[in-house]
Amino acid sequence: MDAALSELMQGTGYCEDGVPVPVALQNGQHLNGLPDHAEGQHFLKEAFQIILEEALCQGTDTKEKVCEWRDPEELRAILDLELRDGGESRDQLLREMCHPLFFNQLFAGVDYHALAGRFLTETLNTSQYTYEVAPVFVLMEEVVLSQLRSLVGWEAGDGIFCPGGSVSNMYAMNLARYRAFPQVKLRGLWAVPRLAVFTSQEGHYSICKAASFQGIGLENVFLVNVDGRGRMIPDDLDRKIELARMQGAVPFLVSATSGTTIQGSFDPLDRIASVCEKHGLWMHVDAAWGGSVLLSKKHRHLLNGIERADSVTWNPHKMLLTGLQCSVFGNLLKRCHCANATYLFQQDKFYDVSLDTGDKSVQCGRKVDCLKLWLMWKAVGTQGLEERVDKAFAYTRYLVEEMKKREGFRLVNEPQFVNVCFWFIPPSLRGMEDSEDYREKLSKVAPNIKERMMRKGSMMVGYQPQKGRVNFFRMVVLSPQISQEEMDFFLDEIERLGRDL
Amino acid sequence: MDAALSELMQGTGYCEDGVPVPVALQNGQHLNGLPDHAEGQHFLKEAFQIILEEALCQGTDTKEKVCEWRDPEELRAILDLELRDGGESRDQLLREMCHPLFFNQLFAGVDYHALAGRFLTETLNTSQYTYEVAPVFVLMEEVVLSQLRSLVGWEAGDGIFCPGGSVSNMYAMNLARYRAFPQVKLRGLWAVPRLAVFTSQEGHYSICKAASFQGIGLENVFLVNVDGRGRMIPDDLDRKIELARMQGAVPFLVSATSGTTIQGSFDPLDRIASVCEKHGLWMHVDAAWGGSVLLSKKHRHLLNGIERADSVTWNPHKMLLTGLQCSVFGNLLKRCHCANATYLFQQDKFYDVSLDTGDKSVQCGRKVDCLKLWLMWKAVGTQGLEERVDKAFAYTRYLVEEMKKREGFRLVNEPQFVNVCFWFIPPSLRGMEDSEDYREKLSKVAPNIKERMMRKGSMMVGYQPQKGRVNFFRMVVLSPQISQEEMDFFLDEIERLGRDL
Repeated sequence: MDAALSELMQGTGYCEDGVPVPVALQNGQHLNGLPDHAEGQHFLKEAFQIILEEALCQGTDTKEKVCEWRDPEELRAILDLELRDGGESRDQLLREMCHPLFFNQLFAGVDYHALAGRFLTETLNTSQYTYEVAPVFVLMEEVVLSQLRSLVGWEAGDGIFCPGGSVSNMYAMNLARYRAFPQVKLRGLWAVPRLAVFTSQEGHYSICKAASFQGIGLENVFLVNVDGRGRMIPDDLDRKIELARMQGAVPFLVSATSGTTIQGSFDPLDRIASVCEKHGLWMHVDAAWGGSVLLSKKHRHLLNGIERADSVTWNPHKMLLTGLQCSVFGNLLKRCHCANATYLFQQDKFYDVSLDTGDKSVQCGRKVDCLKLWLMWKAVGTQGLEERVDKAFAYTRYLVEEMKKREGFRLVNEPQFVNVCFWFIPPSLRGMEDSEDYREKLSKVAPNIKERMMRKGSMMVGYQPQKGRVNFFRMVVLSPQISQEEMDFFLDEIERLGRDL
Repeated sequence: MDAALSELMQGTGYCEDGVPVPVALQNGQHLNGLPDHAEGQHFLKEAFQIILEEALCQGTDTKEKVCEWRDPEELRAILDLELRDGGESRDQLLREMCHPLFFNQLFAGVDYHALAGRFLTETLNTSQYTYEVAPVFVLMEEVVLSQLRSLVGWEAGDGIFCPGGSVSNMYAMNLARYRAFPQVKLRGLWAVPRLAVFTSQEGHYSICKAASFQGIGLENVFLVNVDGRGRMIPDDLDRKIELARMQGAVPFLVSATSGTTIQGSFDPLDRIASVCEKHGLWMHVDAAWGGSVLLSKKHRHLLNGIERADSVTWNPHKMLLTGLQCSVFGNLLKRCHCANATYLFQQDKFYDVSLDTGDKSVQCGRKVDCLKLWLMWKAVGTQGLEERVDKAFAYTRYLVEEMKKREGFRLVNEPQFVNVCFWFIPPSLRGMEDSEDYREKLSKVAPNIKERMMRKGSMMVGYQPQKGRVNFFRMVVLSPQISQEEMDFFLDEIERLGRDL
């Protein structure tokens, strides 16, 4: 035993599920399999340099290709991804990290303050379930959530950060169900009648995933019709609620959308709230994408009525570049999700245990998600965030006006937000709109242009069909990380790549 | 419009839900509200220095307090957490980040390779749903999952990283339900009879949370009895399955545990697998905590039979310090979770779309979780990981032997793993075991010692009651970040803090 223990390393405190071990008083030797702290920090510094040069500088260097396309088989052959019995040296590892293809992931834009916050979060690696393990972060989350709530227009309420908008929407579904039928928690869905959920035809697919996952079933999600610009029609919602009742289901939740994924449409929340009130239903707003518009005095009218919602999903990362995360608000979180694990949430602690927020979550370990947003907000202020949103709208306007000037571009719709959906009509198809094979040929244009741009590495943009519309492009303008010249280049490049199709 | 657009910044590519924008060719000016890249990178470098000095060096400096205790009101008053309309200067921000209390979160131990991987992940901020946006990470995930699978003893299968063990267990429950009753996806739980889940009395509370969240209900979770050392009793499982049937429920899932949260017990998987086979049930193994033992040739017998499971949850971060993340394996992931969002998972792409792994997840944006584990594994090799596990067992042995030598320590049980559960019996209570108020007095010892250690800041350790046992401490030995001296200090300090109770 002493032989094994003679190989000790420098002491360090750590925490495992709330059970940290002591920090003591000894300097140790190098332990086989793990570098000591000096060596480890040296590696980290070198890696940081590489990140700075390869990811940040080149990622933001506009002369680099967006993404060097390689087929999977080719990429597997080039990269040494294999994990072996023995370890590899620092130099080998750093060399691999320097391989240009290693950084050949899409660079997703960055706010440096948020990034610094994320580095700090990762370093501390604290899990945020109790006040005692993360005192500052617990209070910080409180501050950030309360600011977000006041932007929504709520004076009080609860909230939590969760891993993504899809999970947030699941929380909302669970809260709504709990309010309507608290017995589901204990007895399962068999104790209640068949339930029905409502969202628009253009709502996010996570509502459907949530309905499957939570045992409600896809066929109990009623898709409400949208108007010509992709917004839920409140009268149709009313009709669908009646329809569900006639079919023997019990409506409990309406999920309206502020900023749909494809078209960026905003459902008319005020009118939807009135329908929900009339029928006594929980109103959720999936503002994962559009929530940031609340920061803009000029545009927040798009979300009028959101203050009447029972819960809101908002992904600050989407528009504000804080990095993947999400938040959800609502009440009942604790009563609905608590399991009262005795080893985490002891009630005989000597401080206010309402600060032990872990039991509101369905996760156990929960990452600290507030720090990056808090640091960025501190740095630019509420006004700075508002400017970002306003600029994104202004730049979108520019792109749209430019498209109207060019012959080959046809908008799917006048954008309400920063999603610009459009077809490129190659010269060979112009004026053929009435011909029989026009639609079929047009449907192949976007995939073709996309493949060409990826193989060339000049840029990337998504496309999809929707509701009888053949494949069209969707471009999202995200202020402030785009320039007029980029938008012009984008349009020129599509014309270049598509001119012979 | 031109006035707004004249304030342009240096171009950069980014991606929003798979819809990136082009990278073009211009150098821009400083845009109000966001620093330019040079300034941003300068901030990041300074923040990195602070992280290195304050978080890593002090966090690993054994002379520092583990955690400086402050009451919430006091902490709120000291820290300037408020978010304001205007932004704050770089110097102000860095000053705030330097505040000693800011770093006063529990430092959770670190592997420097994994940390470098996490920094890179955060910088690239790529979301891993399709091959085209994250080619290297998609292939890397494939490699890591296949290594983990082969440690489990499976030649083929599927898998995915998810945000935490609790979510992984939910996936398993959904997969099991889907295999037994695929119609639930479409029609909800009303289309099938009442279902029943089985886990042991000492299984993780996330199984119960999952059952509530997924509409199955807490009362349909049958808790199987454990033996004296906290392991599920297969015969009782068999009985409980019959009992559930007699009560009209349909058993579909058994969740066995490898490494329970409190005692670190390992359920007898081989015998449980036989019971599952006999009844045709899905066998899940929650090896979130104990899965890493698979790396040890010496100790992996604790998980014998895991290769017979249908799905496994394994949190490599727990024992291997890779940072919060998790993985789950099983089959059916795609068929069970797919929603076929047309804007992400177009089937007319020009490459093998089975590499677009996003639709296996119930999330939309999904963080890159494989890189940190991959980089660490590369650095130390499979053998290095094995050594860490073996050392943790050896150090636990040492702690246990030392406790047996000291009068005031009483083990709850002989540890099977690295969880050491024990009472400290203060001198005043020794020899009083038969007295009436012994149990009540003993139950107050752990909370008392804990409060003292937190106010003193010397160390932290968790306590909890369990099944008629009054509050006892739980210490987790995590190799290689603990030393003999630390363990001795830990025991001495408990004796010091508890001697007058």
